[in-house]
Amino acid sequence: MAFTYLTNTPLDEARDAYLAALRGCGFAGESETVAVSDACGRVTARAVYAHICAPHYPASAMDGIAVDAARTFGATATTPVTLPQGDYVTVDTGDPVPDGCDAVIMIEDIVTNADGSVTLYAPAAPWQHIRQIGEDICAGEMILPSFTDVTPAAVGAMIAGGVLKIDVIRRPVVGILPTGDEIVPPCEDPKPGDVLEFNSSIFSSMLAEWGAVAKTYPILKDRPDDIRAGLDKALTECDAVLVGAGSSAGRDDYAAAVIGSLGKVLCHGLAIRPGKPAVLGVCRGKPVLGVPGYPVSGILVLQEIFAPILDLWFGRAGAQSACVTAKLTRPLVSGLKYREFVRVRLGYVNGGYVATPLNRGAGVVSSFMKADGILDVPQQTEGFAAGESVTVRLLRPESELRGTLVAIGSHDPLLDEIADLLRRTDPERSMQSTHVGSLGGILAVKRGEAHLAGTHLLGEEDGVYNESFIEKNIPEGGVRLVECVGRTQGLMVAAGNPLGLADVADLTKPGVHYVNRQKGSGTRVLLDYLCRKAGVDTASIYGYGREEFTHTAVAAQIAAGSADAGLGIYSAAKLYGLDFLPVCTEQYDLLIPDWAWETEPVRRLLAILQSDAFRERLNALGGYTIENPGRVRRHFEATV
Amino acid sequence: MAFTYLTNTPLDEARDAYLAALRGCGFAGESETVAVSDACGRVTARAVYAHICAPHYPASAMDGIAVDAARTFGATATTPVTLPQGDYVTVDTGDPVPDGCDAVIMIEDIVTNADGSVTLYAPAAPWQHIRQIGEDICAGEMILPSFTDVTPAAVGAMIAGGVLKIDVIRRPVVGILPTGDEIVPPCEDPKPGDVLEFNSSIFSSMLAEWGAVAKTYPILKDRPDDIRAGLDKALTECDAVLVGAGSSAGRDDYAAAVIGSLGKVLCHGLAIRPGKPAVLGVCRGKPVLGVPGYPVSGILVLQEIFAPILDLWFGRAGAQSACVTAKLTRPLVSGLKYREFVRVRLGYVNGGYVATPLNRGAGVVSSFMKADGILDVPQQTEGFAAGESVTVRLLRPESELRGTLVAIGSHDPLLDEIADLLRRTDPERSMQSTHVGSLGGILAVKRGEAHLAGTHLLGEEDGVYNESFIEKNIPEGGVRLVECVGRTQGLMVAAGNPLGLADVADLTKPGVHYVNRQKGSGTRVLLDYLCRKAGVDTASIYGYGREEFTHTAVAAQIAAGSADAGLGIYSAAKLYGLDFLPVCTEQYDLLIPDWAWETEPVRRLLAILQSDAFRERLNALGGYTIENPGRVRRHFEATV
Repeated sequence: MAFTYLTNTPLDEARDAYLAALRGCGFAGESETVAVSDACGRVTARAVYAHICAPHYPASAMDGIAVDAARTFGATATTPVTLPQGDYVTVDTGDPVPDGCDAVIMIEDIVTNADGSVTLYAPAAPWQHIRQIGEDICAGEMILPSFTDVTPAAVGAMIAGGVLKIDVIRRPVVGILPTGDEIVPPCEDPKPGDVLEFNSSIFSSMLAEWGAVAKTYPILKDRPDDIRAGLDKALTECDAVLVGAGSSAGRDDYAAAVIGSLGKVLCHGLAIRPGKPAVLGVCRGKPVLGVPGYPVSGILVLQEIFAPILDLWFGRAGAQSACVTAKLTRPLVSGLKYREFVRVRLGYVNGGYVATPLNRGAGVVSSFMKADGILDVPQQTEGFAAGESVTVRLLRPESELRGTLVAIGSHDPLLDEIADLLRRTDPERSMQSTHVGSLGGILAVKRGEAHLAGTHLLGEEDGVYNESFIEKNIPEGGVRLVECVGRTQGLMVAAGNPLGLADVADLTKPGVHYVNRQKGSGTRVLLDYLCRKAGVDTASIYGYGREEFTHTAVAAQIAAGSADAGLGIYSAAKLYGLDFLPVCTEQYDLLIPDWAWETEPVRRLLAILQSDAFRERLNALGGYTIENPGRVRRHFEATV
Repeated sequence: MAFTYLTNTPLDEARDAYLAALRGCGFAGESETVAVSDACGRVTARAVYAHICAPHYPASAMDGIAVDAARTFGATATTPVTLPQGDYVTVDTGDPVPDGCDAVIMIEDIVTNADGSVTLYAPAAPWQHIRQIGEDICAGEMILPSFTDVTPAAVGAMIAGGVLKIDVIRRPVVGILPTGDEIVPPCEDPKPGDVLEFNSSIFSSMLAEWGAVAKTYPILKDRPDDIRAGLDKALTECDAVLVGAGSSAGRDDYAAAVIGSLGKVLCHGLAIRPGKPAVLGVCRGKPVLGVPGYPVSGILVLQEIFAPILDLWFGRAGAQSACVTAKLTRPLVSGLKYREFVRVRLGYVNGGYVATPLNRGAGVVSSFMKADGILDVPQQTEGFAAGESVTVRLLRPESELRGTLVAIGSHDPLLDEIADLLRRTDPERSMQSTHVGSLGGILAVKRGEAHLAGTHLLGEEDGVYNESFIEKNIPEGGVRLVECVGRTQGLMVAAGNPLGLADVADLTKPGVHYVNRQKGSGTRVLLDYLCRKAGVDTASIYGYGREEFTHTAVAAQIAAGSADAGLGIYSAAKLYGLDFLPVCTEQYDLLIPDWAWETEPVRRLLAILQSDAFRERLNALGGYTIENPGRVRRHFEATV
């Protein structure tokens, strides 16, 4: 198959043309009749009118007696009026007001006498405490207009109006066709080269949230005839079809050709990143969308192209997310050629939002899971500088973000355990951690971007952890260095130590592949220190330039055999069943700015550090020593 | 049964004590295991850790060739490097990178030669275009903490991490026990005194929105033994129980006694309005809530008391609604004794919000359907003055409110038809109308509270409709009077005109019950004019003081026999099959302020007025004449 160049069509232009084409072929929601009691969350297909009045009879609004109001006129505390039995009717709330009565008197306001008569000390006003016919709804009145969401109260109002069935827009059935020779159904032990088919689970979940019903078909091989037959079948069974993967222009990308053979391709290639290789097609009057195989691209294409198609089906306006203004924590470079949708984490710190871009890889589905918002970088924009104010479209409610403890700094799995304990003890609290290394954490705290930073930087001159780095980088003070844990650092090597490595000097041996941590991380500082002490030139370590951002990622490379050694903590080695050559026990401290010290998230954090549950979790991880977590080691007083 | 006085416990106090008691008896969400692909929208019961890395092998990130990067060093445009077949491997996106290769070169960047060799004009950097093992997720890493909502992206991340099943909080089963001798299942033709049982449908819908499963039991009579047996059964089958109705302190209110006999009543009577007669009980460690029978009270008690109980079950923070500041259009008087939750309509007009309180009757379920927000009036507060700024908790998204056309003024069913046509032609547009009569509409436009007002006020001196009223009430001008329709007004009487009424003079006859419209309405002005002309003293009309707010409500009273005559428009009489004695054809005009004239909602309105669809709807209603709807009759230029 020939190599196909994709177009670079601006998103809005492509979407508008697509929706216009679908409208042109009459694509719109069909209706179905449902019981009103099952209609909540549905959308009315036409206006709903009341069949009866509510109430449908004059009803007592109180427990008491019904009377002819005229009979009570003149009653006062000194000139009470007594009505004999038979001249009033006892009524409960909801009872019909009998003929001849035009007022209800509350039970609290009457005195019942032994002979069954009642005495009143005040007159009743005509029509008091009576719910008039149609007070709530009048027969013939429009209860709901067309294309309107049915709420719980609307369900009640319709039944009150004698309406038991209504026409709603049918939920559209959306076929999902996963394609690809390498794609396999989800499993726990895939073989190398197997790509787990989870896109259809993501898409099904998104479609359900949007009111559609997903119908996922079996995985198709990269054979045009198979894909064509699959699409043909889906078109007869569904209202719209998503053709998964195969929407780029590579060797095995048949989606566009197949869609074109069964209908028309309106656009192949959007000027967005991620999501470029989408195919916008129409077959037999139904939308057929070729969705890129990378999950992040797929999610974005569904949000940007398919959600508006469902809005068209339901006759509803698209949901509009709220936006906030945030300070960007890092520079963000974006290509001029594409409009880019960058997933960001948002932290609410010191009264404002800070935004940190997440991994921009189109395959990194966890970036969408972690994302609090989307930063929309227009085409023809080079990006933004660190510290710049940007507008971020929210993916989570602000109330949730405002309860979140923001940790930026050195990685340790114990941070995740703290996050879990925080959630388990207080539903209003959660924690997000970003791994930028110890030095990055110190600078984030300095800039007011985090509630805390994990840090374990060994001061080479004084042999004291962290303090000299804080003095140097935050001379203005206003931070507390807080004890957290001691932890064992060492060389992680494959189980059984097949290369027989003993220390950092062995890392320069031929055939040894090292995997390093990123610049500014405490573990890299430690490696450099160990090398200098041992007289090892780091340039002679193969893989010194290969960087991972977490202890677990380093351990994962070694466990998979793509590297032979890496420096890291004991718990990571244990997790992956690696051999571990201990090097030292280091201080893993927390740096907390003064402004955050008295805040509720930090107070909760300190309570957790001192809890038994935290000790138990660390024991399970292994390689930690715990003395006085939460103790302030040193308060760097503000100098200004 | 003895009359029971209810307590007047402040809401927050009662709720806190209730939640503390439930926590004390170990009430909390149980867990169940579900497939991850079905887990979207559920809440994790414990932290989820990855089983495998994602990717689980070093994967090509591009379509191209995999190479040993070292073999490409030195390649430039002038000194290209050629790799013979066998020294590279063709790979597609997602393919494993073969042993011995540590870089991928994109297909666009290579030249393939006839002998199968490839030529490169630039070096490859080690690890370029390779997705490292664990780039997305590392085995052992925490994917989601406890008590966290599962999103579509999280579903993908878990499957990518080899997790196919997870523990989530089981959806609680909530029993609903409707009680009451007068309660009947929903039907289309209830007998007088029958109260349709729609509360359980409302509550089921609310519970479903909150993630619980409702189990509605058959209606129970007001017999303590029956209710006790029903509650006993529900307690064995459910995690919580709502006992409907019967929670006040009247004759047939057994809920509190029954709950007390099977457990403990913590509180009976809340200092809120509506919602006072709630019963907060605990039986066998499960919450049992006695819910007031009036639907509005019931909805509020569920929102204020039961939603927090479900939050406790799920270990989640309560949803926080956004608030807006709005100008109150009418004074709002509230009792000092209660905290009151007033349903309000919000209009976004001329750049700000205005709030209009809806019918405060606890039985008026349509008020909750129409409500855009809740105005929370604290205890010990007398209310607010008209024009005061108040804070309103939103029940709809702001984007929806901002697209809404606000009509305040005279009632006509054609307004509902316009609302429906508006929705059918533009999903971003909706319309709300509030019926305050013609004069109220003119004053609302003057105060900048509406986009338009329907008005049909006959000027007695000049015989011209509306203009003199506008001149008098809006001397500052800045409004347009726009032609809408002509409509026939007349006396509505029961079918067959059994009392043989002929004109307004007959309304004073003995035994004739009239039903009037509210002060300021055009129809009341018309009645007063007709009476003056005919020399009729309105004080001698029985029922002159009985007020309804719409033509349909007047017609409904006559159709039900609770009144004999009322002045109104032909379409209302037709709707109820009443006889109609025409009196005149009047001008029903629209008053539109200049600031709104060029806005999108008004532009849409004018297009609809001139549409064929509008004519067709009016013909179906009957009694209208249409000439040039949308034509400006007179522009009252701003004088300043």
